[in-house]
Amino acid sequence: MQATETFQISVDEAGLQLAADGSLRHLLTLKGLEKTLLIELLDEAQRFLTPFGAIPARSRSLEGRTVANLFFEPSTRTRASFDLAAKRLGADVLNLDVNTSSRKKGESILDMIYTLQAMHVDIMVVRDASASVPAHIARNVNEYVSILNAGEADISHPTQGLLDLLTIRQHKGRFEGLTVAIVGDIAHSRVVRSTAHGLNTLGVGELRLVSPAALAPDPDELPFALLTDNIDDGIRGADVVMALRIQRERMDSLEGIPGMDEYFANYGVSAKRLELAAPDAIVMHPGPMNRGIEIESSLADSPASVITQQVTNGVAVRMAVLERVGKTMAAT
Amino acid sequence: MQATETFQISVDEAGLQLAADGSLRHLLTLKGLEKTLLIELLDEAQRFLTPFGAIPARSRSLEGRTVANLFFEPSTRTRASFDLAAKRLGADVLNLDVNTSSRKKGESILDMIYTLQAMHVDIMVVRDASASVPAHIARNVNEYVSILNAGEADISHPTQGLLDLLTIRQHKGRFEGLTVAIVGDIAHSRVVRSTAHGLNTLGVGELRLVSPAALAPDPDELPFALLTDNIDDGIRGADVVMALRIQRERMDSLEGIPGMDEYFANYGVSAKRLELAAPDAIVMHPGPMNRGIEIESSLADSPASVITQQVTNGVAVRMAVLERVGKTMAAT
Amino acid sequence: MQATETFQISVDEAGLQLAADGSLRHLLTLKGLEKTLLIELLDEAQRFLTPFGAIPARSRSLEGRTVANLFFEPSTRTRASFDLAAKRLGADVLNLDVNTSSRKKGESILDMIYTLQAMHVDIMVVRDASASVPAHIARNVNEYVSILNAGEADISHPTQGLLDLLTIRQHKGRFEGLTVAIVGDIAHSRVVRSTAHGLNTLGVGELRLVSPAALAPDPDELPFALLTDNIDDGIRGADVVMALRIQRERMDSLEGIPGMDEYFANYGVSAKRLELAAPDAIVMHPGPMNRGIEIESSLADSPASVITQQVTNGVAVRMAVLERVGKTMAAT
Repeated sequence: MQATETFQISVDEAGLQLAADGSLRHLLTLKGLEKTLLIELLDEAQRFLTPFGAIPARSRSLEGRTVANLFFEPSTRTRASFDLAAKRLGADVLNLDVNTSSRKKGESILDMIYTLQAMHVDIMVVRDASASVPAHIARNVNEYVSILNAGEADISHPTQGLLDLLTIRQHKGRFEGLTVAIVGDIAHSRVVRSTAHGLNTLGVGELRLVSPAALAPDPDELPFALLTDNIDDGIRGADVVMALRIQRERMDSLEGIPGMDEYFANYGVSAKRLELAAPDAIVMHPGPMNRGIEIESSLADSPASVITQQVTNGVAVRMAVLERVGKTMAAT
Repeated sequence: MQATETFQISVDEAGLQLAADGSLRHLLTLKGLEKTLLIELLDEAQRFLTPFGAIPARSRSLEGRTVANLFFEPSTRTRASFDLAAKRLGADVLNLDVNTSSRKKGESILDMIYTLQAMHVDIMVVRDASASVPAHIARNVNEYVSILNAGEADISHPTQGLLDLLTIRQHKGRFEGLTVAIVGDIAHSRVVRSTAHGLNTLGVGELRLVSPAALAPDPDELPFALLTDNIDDGIRGADVVMALRIQRERMDSLEGIPGMDEYFANYGVSAKRLELAAPDAIVMHPGPMNRGIEIESSLADSPASVITQQVTNGVAVRMAVLERVGKTMAAT
Repeated sequence: MQATETFQISVDEAGLQLAADGSLRHLLTLKGLEKTLLIELLDEAQRFLTPFGAIPARSRSLEGRTVANLFFEPSTRTRASFDLAAKRLGADVLNLDVNTSSRKKGESILDMIYTLQAMHVDIMVVRDASASVPAHIARNVNEYVSILNAGEADISHPTQGLLDLLTIRQHKGRFEGLTVAIVGDIAHSRVVRSTAHGLNTLGVGELRLVSPAALAPDPDELPFALLTDNIDDGIRGADVVMALRIQRERMDSLEGIPGMDEYFANYGVSAKRLELAAPDAIVMHPGPMNRGIEIESSLADSPASVITQQVTNGVAVRMAVLERVGKTMAAT
């Protein structure tokens, strides 16, 4: 399982994502993807942004193609984001609520995938609570099908990583010399894994991870400059401060995790704390937020917050990825 | 809460629905909407009607726009009606089953709305069991987003009101001098609230409300000419007789509500009772019907019944409203 | 109920499916459909097949029409197959999860159908666990609506029958002189009922049904040449071997049905057993498979298996049927 690998590039995983000519075929993880490819995806996503009120950017690049959303975990935002991205590229979209249908009948995931493949589904967007499912599927589909990872256990959420990178680039214009602090449940976050690998590839100045000891990651697992349980040390001078969602369920069940009030006091990102950061620091959150727990509610709505912009970038990034794998498909 | 206001126009609510130039931006309630606007909407809806067997009327007026159906209460008919209306105008439609996703994660309604807004959702169709939710959302979205109320607690269901008005106009050709009797659970009906305000604005002759005392409305809340618990008094001479759905659950739990058989005997709209009405009286019901409880089954299928026509008009009215707010949007 | 009828053509059922000029209006059952019509549908389906990697075959023949998927039983594959077929013909598709909405409110099926009809839904695709529901609906809709049976109790699943016929024709090129063996839970299979009637009409050489005695059909109910509980007798010399899904629930509750291991030993279709069949025999399964119970897992993935091709043909067959009833509709 990838979660227990070191952060060195796994040639196998990275290679699995690319077609023979090096073009992007699946998106499973940001780890191991080349800097040029990441930058091209960000550039392409940027082109899909239009001002509010205008008709959203559209293209016909997936016209006639079929995109299936296979969500084995419930999701509103990521599912909606992929759904809109695919429709705005002209694709037919098949939304499968997988919990309530074939799994009842005990069908294996691969048999379901083979079925969709046989129906000429071109791109499958997969979210699953178990590790390695997207790569497992990618290894087994035929050469004409693309798999996009829409959230994999605690391991990977590559389009979330890309939207974070795009948002940071829009505000800071660079990654070199930038200090990014990510605060919260690092141990269980697929978001931080994707974002950290992307930042690392793009040459971020200093990545700091802040969490209670009980939620700290395996230090071999992620690229970072500082791992601390002191939020002030983490935030001081940072250009970007990202709060992570904490699962309330974990607070009751895991030892060493403070209760909600204590969590906010020690790990909540607040306006007061943000004073320690760089004067123009931005505040990010992958959503959905627990306001008043991991982030101060008024800060989430303040000018420093770029949280809704992350959502907007999410659709653009997914359009860029969908269009990109569609091009690889057309060239096959 | 609107439910406890008098039926005087609330400038705030009415104003909230209109853009600065007076064009329709949100549809939250029929209360306070001007007669000219109501008539224009009915005229536009009428244009979207085509004979059965022909391809349904279509337009490209929402092409490239995104409509999200946000139903926090289960619904087949209203959701399907908005879905088809939006698709027949060329919009991309996002159907969110909100019960089973983000609310599990404890996200607030407004954060979900901000997320959809950030994804360039242009029009949000909202149904919620709590009062004031659509107006609350409308007050908080940016200037490019339109909110359409698809059913709000016991308070408001404005597109249902419009389709009732359109159906009555098709059969009677006028509102002046017309006697309309609405029979059933007035106290808990969002339908009657919308229809009553619309009828009032269009100058209906006489609106009569019939219900058991336990289901009577607050007399200050609605515009009417007669409130009675005697169905014969209510129906006598009426040009339009509308039966309301009675929740079976209420029959068991609310004191003073008769059982099913007794309800039909005292408040069921039947062919026999309809003899008291005007000779060409029409029978309406918002659906879904409890046949044999609030309405005699054979009467629902008789020539006097315009119940399925109400459904047909529902799609047309929703197309008219969607197209109208789309025009306001394009002019912003 | 059809299940207890003999396999003689019911003029009523067959006639119900056709418009006055003999063209196909509803698809309820393959029983009684003429050979020429079946062959035309197979020919039309064949035209909708394209190589993998290419854009799937599309047409605009249902543009502007509305197809509603009304699944009263959960389904992933059949629902997805109809959904894609309709979209690839340019139709608007309305997916109704009927369990969780109007049935909660106690609405009758017919009232729901009348509602959809009133919304100008042109084609309704219906799956229901009760017998006779599709025909009941077909008898009650107006002359502009088509009903397609997507699975009816143990009785009928005509598009599954058509895709089986198409798959067999692709590999064998003929039906005359062909020996087909169907193995498993014959008693409860709507698949076998449709496929058997279709094979019979197309003049199959010899149809053999193999099942444990407890799962054998009423012998008057189906056209067949041999009914046996001995799988070797059934498979010997067969050109086509089709394994049926066995409901695991039945194994625990029905007397006379062996447990899983014993079932595989006695009724599982395996590579070893296939040696008894014709040298170029193909293996079929309607899916979803219980690998290792009714079919050997490695055989399902072997060159003899045409199981995923059945799925591909399923979309093509449904496009052919949808286009066909759309033409009948346009001529009305």
